Amino acid sequence: MKKEKIILTGDRPTGKLHIGHYVGSLRRRVELQNSGLYDKIFVFEADGQALTDNIDNPEKVRQNVIEVALDYLSVGLDPNKSTIFIQSQIPELCELTFYYMDMVTVSRLQRNPTVKTEIQMRNFETSIPVGFFTYPISQAADITAFKATTVPVGEDQEPMIEQAREIVRRFNHIYGETLVEPDILLPDNAACLRLPGTDGKAKMSKSLGNCIYLSDSADEVEKKVKSMYTDPTHIKVTDPGRLEGNTVFTYLDAFCRPEHFGRYLTDYASLDELKAHYTRGGLGDMKVKKFLAAIMQEELEPIRNRRKEFEKDIPAVYAMLKQGCEVARAAAAQTLDEVRRAMKINYFDDDALIAEQAKRFSNE
Amino acid sequence: MKKEKIILTGDRPTGKLHIGHYVGSLRRRVELQNSGLYDKIFVFEADGQALTDNIDNPEKVRQNVIEVALDYLSVGLDPNKSTIFIQSQIPELCELTFYYMDMVTVSRLQRNPTVKTEIQMRNFETSIPVGFFTYPISQAADITAFKATTVPVGEDQEPMIEQAREIVRRFNHIYGETLVEPDILLPDNAACLRLPGTDGKAKMSKSLGNCIYLSDSADEVEKKVKSMYTDPTHIKVTDPGRLEGNTVFTYLDAFCRPEHFGRYLTDYASLDELKAHYTRGGLGDMKVKKFLAAIMQEELEPIRNRRKEFEKDIPAVYAMLKQGCEVARAAAAQTLDEVRRAMKINYFDDDALIAEQAKRFSNE
Repeated sequence: MKKEKIILTGDRPTGKLHIGHYVGSLRRRVELQNSGLYDKIFVFEADGQALTDNIDNPEKVRQNVIEVALDYLSVGLDPNKSTIFIQSQIPELCELTFYYMDMVTVSRLQRNPTVKTEIQMRNFETSIPVGFFTYPISQAADITAFKATTVPVGEDQEPMIEQAREIVRRFNHIYGETLVEPDILLPDNAACLRLPGTDGKAKMSKSLGNCIYLSDSADEVEKKVKSMYTDPTHIKVTDPGRLEGNTVFTYLDAFCRPEHFGRYLTDYASLDELKAHYTRGGLGDMKVKKFLAAIMQEELEPIRNRRKEFEKDIPAVYAMLKQGCEVARAAAAQTLDEVRRAMKINYFDDDALIAEQAKRFSNE
Repeated sequence: MKKEKIILTGDRPTGKLHIGHYVGSLRRRVELQNSGLYDKIFVFEADGQALTDNIDNPEKVRQNVIEVALDYLSVGLDPNKSTIFIQSQIPELCELTFYYMDMVTVSRLQRNPTVKTEIQMRNFETSIPVGFFTYPISQAADITAFKATTVPVGEDQEPMIEQAREIVRRFNHIYGETLVEPDILLPDNAACLRLPGTDGKAKMSKSLGNCIYLSDSADEVEKKVKSMYTDPTHIKVTDPGRLEGNTVFTYLDAFCRPEHFGRYLTDYASLDELKAHYTRGGLGDMKVKKFLAAIMQEELEPIRNRRKEFEKDIPAVYAMLKQGCEVARAAAAQTLDEVRRAMKINYFDDDALIAEQAKRFSNE
């Protein structure tokens, strides 16, 4: 039997998704969904993982489950092609996590560079919640529960996939071939790895107010693009401008395609020409921003319109999620069943065990 | 409504139970069961916990599940009074563990003295399996899943109960009164805390071959008592003997009752008299050992006989365990349901959430 190609991917529902998510993963995810190259696609909201550092504020997670679902649908994830589900509704994931925890040492977790960085980012120091510390193991459960072969994530997530692969190898070594080793699928465009905030800061974050959300209105997008960070030394139009660290140009790298010039800025034939003019001086920020705004509106308008449609029937979105959870749960339950059989902790279904023990005691 | 009094207690199924378990916990457990003071009693085989440091050798755990069940039944645990179940068959425990892990920090676990000692005992050093490191959290799940009010354990387990209490308080503080804080029930007889091995070593252990098992034959018990470690300086009968570190007398402290003298050693009226004679010299080890053997046979014979009966129908013992698991699972599922409601991660049952979100989007 040919091995199925299965994608697993997801997001933490701690806020509405923004164009950083779109450029970094959602856009590609929809392409992968529509490519016809994969047998199954599982997309999930990692609410359980979101709780690992939000246990005091579960309401935040609860409110954002629907936001992320709307974002998914509006970018074009299609429940008929992708199984969209919520982590906490799949108890089998906790059970897999529980057993995988015996196959990883504390020091192995401590060496995980992604965890190290995230602990630093969150200022946890010694007060890391255990659930946060162990989340690479929980991620391995998410991946393996669906027998994912392909996990599309950024390079920074490579250590997480490696941890999952280690667990798979250890499990299969002890208990026989059961789990599937996942492969990482890296982004094909380095420029798209991570969009900066509109203020030029490296990361978009709700608290910094520097995000453009997929759900922002046309006016909000316009306003945010117009106020974007560019080159602070580019004061007069005639000044030469710098591209490096210039948010407007970073966004253009992520969004601009050749055909956009014909539609919105016929003075130039390509992004390279535009950049050259800006660098040598004589091109004002506002002109570039207007161009970027037009491109972004083109990209975001259909997303916004789809969102508006889905927002009209919220119960239907919950119903879609519920159905996704049922499909996902059946898949995870199947894997868990195989795991329990391999570990031979399915005592009551194990007729051979019962017969063997009965024989042993009758001989004693 | 009066709060129910509920006991939870159990053992790791890594080997047949021995008289150390009997004196340290099983004997008392049966008394508690028969006292009529408790509304519910849950007794479980912690196979999941046993796997935390036996993940490479699951067969050991698998083989011993039936041994421990037979030991339970043979000492007088009664499935009609106590719910006997197996941890791994209650997936709700993994789910509770998963969420409790967010409420405990890594440094809190590192400070747990019981875990520290056990890590040392097992020579884990830096290669502690995560599942082992986090087992206080899993124990908190075991205790709270059954709303246990009373956990009969030795003093050395006090930090574990305190960890469970902390989790309960943290949970109830964040999510509202949901879980029940357990109390420890310490042994009433200090002498019974821990029996040494027959070789005088502090701990009975299968690998040292210094255990008397509940399932040992009368001959084996006789042989083991006769070869017991006493006082190595007590060479001639006339030599004065020491009681301290003298295994035979430690065992007498645990097993001997005044009526035993009338039945097996009429020369003395009490254990104190016997000890006095031994101390001043003139009393041979073999005489004391014969006395101890007689007492132990009296205690162990009915246990042995009951075991023989249960061994005749092994499938019935599995069926009893299976039924216990069903009862336990229903109780744990009820608690988990309350936990999920309190945490508000029961999205699809939460009509208020769906209505609230629908309203929010219609107003936007």
